[in-house]
Amino acid sequence: MKSSFEVTFLPYERRIKVPTGTNLLRAANLVGIYLKSVCGGAGTCGKCELIVRKGGVKTLQAMPDADLPDGGKRVLACQSEVSGDVVVEVPRRSVTEEGEEEKILGNSLEFGSAEVCPCGAGPNGEAAIGPVLTQKFHLEMSGPTLEDTTADRERFLKVLEGQTGEGEVRMGLDAVRSLAMGLRQGNWKATATVSRVNSMPEVLKVDPGDTREKHYGLAVDIGTTTVVAELVDMNTCQSLGTRASHNLQIGYGEDVISRIVFACNRGGEQTLQESVVETVNKLVHALCTEAGIDRRDITAMVCAGNTTMTHLLLGLPPCNIRMEPYIPVVNQYPTVAAKEIGIAIHPNGIVFCIPGISSYVGGDITSGVVYTDLAESDELTLFMDLGTNGEMVLGNRDWLTCCSASVGPAFEGGGIRWGMRATAGAIEKVIWDQGRNDLRYETIGGNRPKGICGSGLIDILGTFLLNGVIDQQGRFFPDKAGRRLRERDGSKEYIIAFKDETDLGEDITITQEDILNVIRSKAAVYAAAMTMVHTMGLSIQEVARVLVAGGFGTYLDIEKAVLIGLLPDLPLDRFRFVGNSSLKGARRVLLCGNYRNKALTISRAMTYLELSVYPGYMDEYMAAMFLPHTNMSDFPNVAKKMQTV
Amino acid sequence: MKSSFEVTFLPYERRIKVPTGTNLLRAANLVGIYLKSVCGGAGTCGKCELIVRKGGVKTLQAMPDADLPDGGKRVLACQSEVSGDVVVEVPRRSVTEEGEEEKILGNSLEFGSAEVCPCGAGPNGEAAIGPVLTQKFHLEMSGPTLEDTTADRERFLKVLEGQTGEGEVRMGLDAVRSLAMGLRQGNWKATATVSRVNSMPEVLKVDPGDTREKHYGLAVDIGTTTVVAELVDMNTCQSLGTRASHNLQIGYGEDVISRIVFACNRGGEQTLQESVVETVNKLVHALCTEAGIDRRDITAMVCAGNTTMTHLLLGLPPCNIRMEPYIPVVNQYPTVAAKEIGIAIHPNGIVFCIPGISSYVGGDITSGVVYTDLAESDELTLFMDLGTNGEMVLGNRDWLTCCSASVGPAFEGGGIRWGMRATAGAIEKVIWDQGRNDLRYETIGGNRPKGICGSGLIDILGTFLLNGVIDQQGRFFPDKAGRRLRERDGSKEYIIAFKDETDLGEDITITQEDILNVIRSKAAVYAAAMTMVHTMGLSIQEVARVLVAGGFGTYLDIEKAVLIGLLPDLPLDRFRFVGNSSLKGARRVLLCGNYRNKALTISRAMTYLELSVYPGYMDEYMAAMFLPHTNMSDFPNVAKKMQTV
Repeated sequence: MKSSFEVTFLPYERRIKVPTGTNLLRAANLVGIYLKSVCGGAGTCGKCELIVRKGGVKTLQAMPDADLPDGGKRVLACQSEVSGDVVVEVPRRSVTEEGEEEKILGNSLEFGSAEVCPCGAGPNGEAAIGPVLTQKFHLEMSGPTLEDTTADRERFLKVLEGQTGEGEVRMGLDAVRSLAMGLRQGNWKATATVSRVNSMPEVLKVDPGDTREKHYGLAVDIGTTTVVAELVDMNTCQSLGTRASHNLQIGYGEDVISRIVFACNRGGEQTLQESVVETVNKLVHALCTEAGIDRRDITAMVCAGNTTMTHLLLGLPPCNIRMEPYIPVVNQYPTVAAKEIGIAIHPNGIVFCIPGISSYVGGDITSGVVYTDLAESDELTLFMDLGTNGEMVLGNRDWLTCCSASVGPAFEGGGIRWGMRATAGAIEKVIWDQGRNDLRYETIGGNRPKGICGSGLIDILGTFLLNGVIDQQGRFFPDKAGRRLRERDGSKEYIIAFKDETDLGEDITITQEDILNVIRSKAAVYAAAMTMVHTMGLSIQEVARVLVAGGFGTYLDIEKAVLIGLLPDLPLDRFRFVGNSSLKGARRVLLCGNYRNKALTISRAMTYLELSVYPGYMDEYMAAMFLPHTNMSDFPNVAKKMQTV
Repeated sequence: MKSSFEVTFLPYERRIKVPTGTNLLRAANLVGIYLKSVCGGAGTCGKCELIVRKGGVKTLQAMPDADLPDGGKRVLACQSEVSGDVVVEVPRRSVTEEGEEEKILGNSLEFGSAEVCPCGAGPNGEAAIGPVLTQKFHLEMSGPTLEDTTADRERFLKVLEGQTGEGEVRMGLDAVRSLAMGLRQGNWKATATVSRVNSMPEVLKVDPGDTREKHYGLAVDIGTTTVVAELVDMNTCQSLGTRASHNLQIGYGEDVISRIVFACNRGGEQTLQESVVETVNKLVHALCTEAGIDRRDITAMVCAGNTTMTHLLLGLPPCNIRMEPYIPVVNQYPTVAAKEIGIAIHPNGIVFCIPGISSYVGGDITSGVVYTDLAESDELTLFMDLGTNGEMVLGNRDWLTCCSASVGPAFEGGGIRWGMRATAGAIEKVIWDQGRNDLRYETIGGNRPKGICGSGLIDILGTFLLNGVIDQQGRFFPDKAGRRLRERDGSKEYIIAFKDETDLGEDITITQEDILNVIRSKAAVYAAAMTMVHTMGLSIQEVARVLVAGGFGTYLDIEKAVLIGLLPDLPLDRFRFVGNSSLKGARRVLLCGNYRNKALTISRAMTYLELSVYPGYMDEYMAAMFLPHTNMSDFPNVAKKMQTV
């Protein structure tokens, strides 16, 4: 009996040989086709539909009306196992988006081209207050003779300790193993890469000759949906590129809870660990290829992720995160060597995960607080990071409180029929043409549209509401929607881009269900923010600054976000969109020890509010399931606008 | 074509399947049959003879008179590769000895049954001056609640840091990974094993409940020929057993030089690393089985070995050790985790290698100096460790000098036709019966004789010399030797035990070549000692104490050793035989941090004399190629004895 078979995915013509019994969702992932999978492969969301054109799959759960008139058979990828060579067709609607590591532009605005490091230190961290993660030292020593038979390691460390000037330097077995050859190849001139993470400096690697100019680091934002990595020159602090990719874990669940269930109830912990590592490694490969550097010259990596993502990256069991009283294994993560978790930079390269606060407020939020200097601010600031989870921090230099709400993947393009990440071709803005009583759109990069990103969804809902396309519950008004509204499978949908404007062969639509998804997401965010503000005995009007972070790309229309009640109705000049603050904070920590220390201080100082034990949260949530809100007196400016239009 | 074949070794009936092309020497090793191999598999010593009885080997180098009348074919194991199923007969003379891990008795005299640790510390190291390698702490903590959501690691470390009282405690990824389950299984009672090797304590493992009573360590002497391991209860300091085994590297060369050649010129470094680790792991398995303990409860291991052996254990390239100016990679070895080198104790268990002094004076000698308290002595002391290498230390509390000579494996039973280690059945003593003008022997344990150990060889040569069986050049006097002397293959040999006294079906003999081997070995030792004494501007008469160490077992007749000129002619009360001081020092270091610090101090303070650059050494060596010595005025007491007999 054959033990492996070929799966061909049409129209991509991508082929892969997999063992018998391989899940088609996994197989698709392996060839870089990312199928929608809101339920995490449980067979309940129905998003990962494929059409079997030829050959053998074993179906665990049949679909209704499976047999098509043209001979094809509809199956759910997550419920299908390979039992022979098979050819499947992938409907465009089943694909979250065409994956691969995408180049991200405009993510490095603040420091990317700066000559100095964020904390004011010079190249190689000389003036940093705290030591940078890794430093390079060039050493010259006299070679051994019969009169001076000092061993290689002792000879080397004596010179190095003279340069670091901080007493004893450690050196692990791997570095010692390559020492004899390295020193002789370089004729007793060598460059040491030294980790400054622990109290005692440690040699990570030794190169022959002077290699100080090749010193690279990686800042990584590990999101539940998207992983973004930035390659940085540690000497100049310059960015050498930023790339994003789907988190390959996405085939096993779209949110942290379904991932935890997969890890803990279905034995998938190792699979998830390997998936996220594979995601990071693909980004490393793409970034190194683009910049023309050797991945072994990357010796430091800083990761910012939510608590579940960081646990899975490190191979720590996330199981207690979802069970009351919601306890992570660790908030202040141990620094590990890249080889310990399989990251494809230098094997001894250090991986520092930014510490978190609790099970549902992780290192990505600490990183955001580091980036925004919130903990140094005199003004009362509300920080909101809107991804698959919505985490919020309230405070100033004297106190910090945080909370978390489950938002769903809508703002990252998940769980939405035509949702996609904020990359080229995503519809990010719509404009209502009053004269023609119709709608225009703009895409990122001006490309032909491929889908709708988070900021596009917010823009669409705001525009719909303002122009009477939908009512305050999100239901379509048929008369105003006109020719763009249609019914499909018994449910209404609104065409944003017609088939002939796209390259997809299908209309790009927003469905009634999509709109309800966005309303649920925005209600969760707003309710969490209000519960936290009220719990602290404050009113939202006392908040002097609102910083909004998230994977919305370069653009978020704050006015529209207020209009739909995602953000509170405050004067617009109090808002600032800070982009991917998780990644930006990680870069700060990578480049400057001062920020690393700040991250540790923040993670220890912040108070966590567990919303589930505040009965008021559910009431806030229900009240927010309306556009903008059931209590319109909280949205006086929006109310005024809705009357004028 | 079949890619693996079965090799059967007669008369043992041991079988193994090996890939095509496997060397028969390696195959024999794998089934625990240790063939003699003085040349390290180069095909020059002719010791590893086998007789092919059936089937296929490919012979790289034919033996003279290979075809036997009975149809068998003589081959050298090292020059034969498996090319089909094959049955070979192993002549008794080709086997160094019947291997497997042997139980060693009487090796733990001093401290084995003591109630306190060597440095006077109580159980668990409470009163030790320096901290012991690992300590166990029992912790009780309150579990998490919705009001106290501290993460597992932070909760655990807070309680632990309260107990250790030395500030921050580190915890590596492996230990963190098992923490969540461990704490909950033990209902928030747990036991932490903490390493005290580095400046910051580190948690190695966490067990549920109270496991303090299961805390074990391992002291290991890694000799070129023999590896000896002792299992120690870290709570009581009691020995739970000592076992010895051939170093499985022996198939790749009998001395350090041939091992280095194999590692560096023939790509065998990894093979040698795996072989010595396999040797240690077999001993660990035997010791744990015997003591009824789980190997994962062993969390500390101290190794003492010469510089080459320690390099190979750690996977460090030994190549520069044999090339002028003879530089090791390292003398102060990094402490490693067991998993880094494949040692089968707890994967995070720490392996501490006792630091060495130079390429040819290693950690085994530092260990011997630690054990003998030489560096605290007022008296001028000469310490001699006689193994395959002969290392010597001269000094007192004020200064220490050392040197090394290549001795050959004779004193450990190697390179001698009937040589064997000092275990049960080894002839260790002979008595000359003046009346019958004949010889009697005694064996270790009183068993039927199996071979001759190092102390037996010294005893035989001394007895022969005193009773005129051999002349001062080691040549047999035919008239005195009588019926026991015979000629074989054109060379004389003397029967020590007749066939019917043994279980071997063959006479146990000592050959002319054996005697010359012993003379070469003893000359190398004596010449080294004299060169060192003279270089320091001293005379041998000024040495107040001579401490002799080595794998001679429980017995060494000092008088006979002086008689043959192995040891200098000093009053007998200045000598002391200290046994395996390398192992005994390792146990001290295992049990007491004070001794670990001493070992580091000694390794840094000792001066190394490179004998090869002292022209006088060769002259001393040539002068010592005589029994006892060409210069009889240096051996006045021996001269007197030889005249009286």
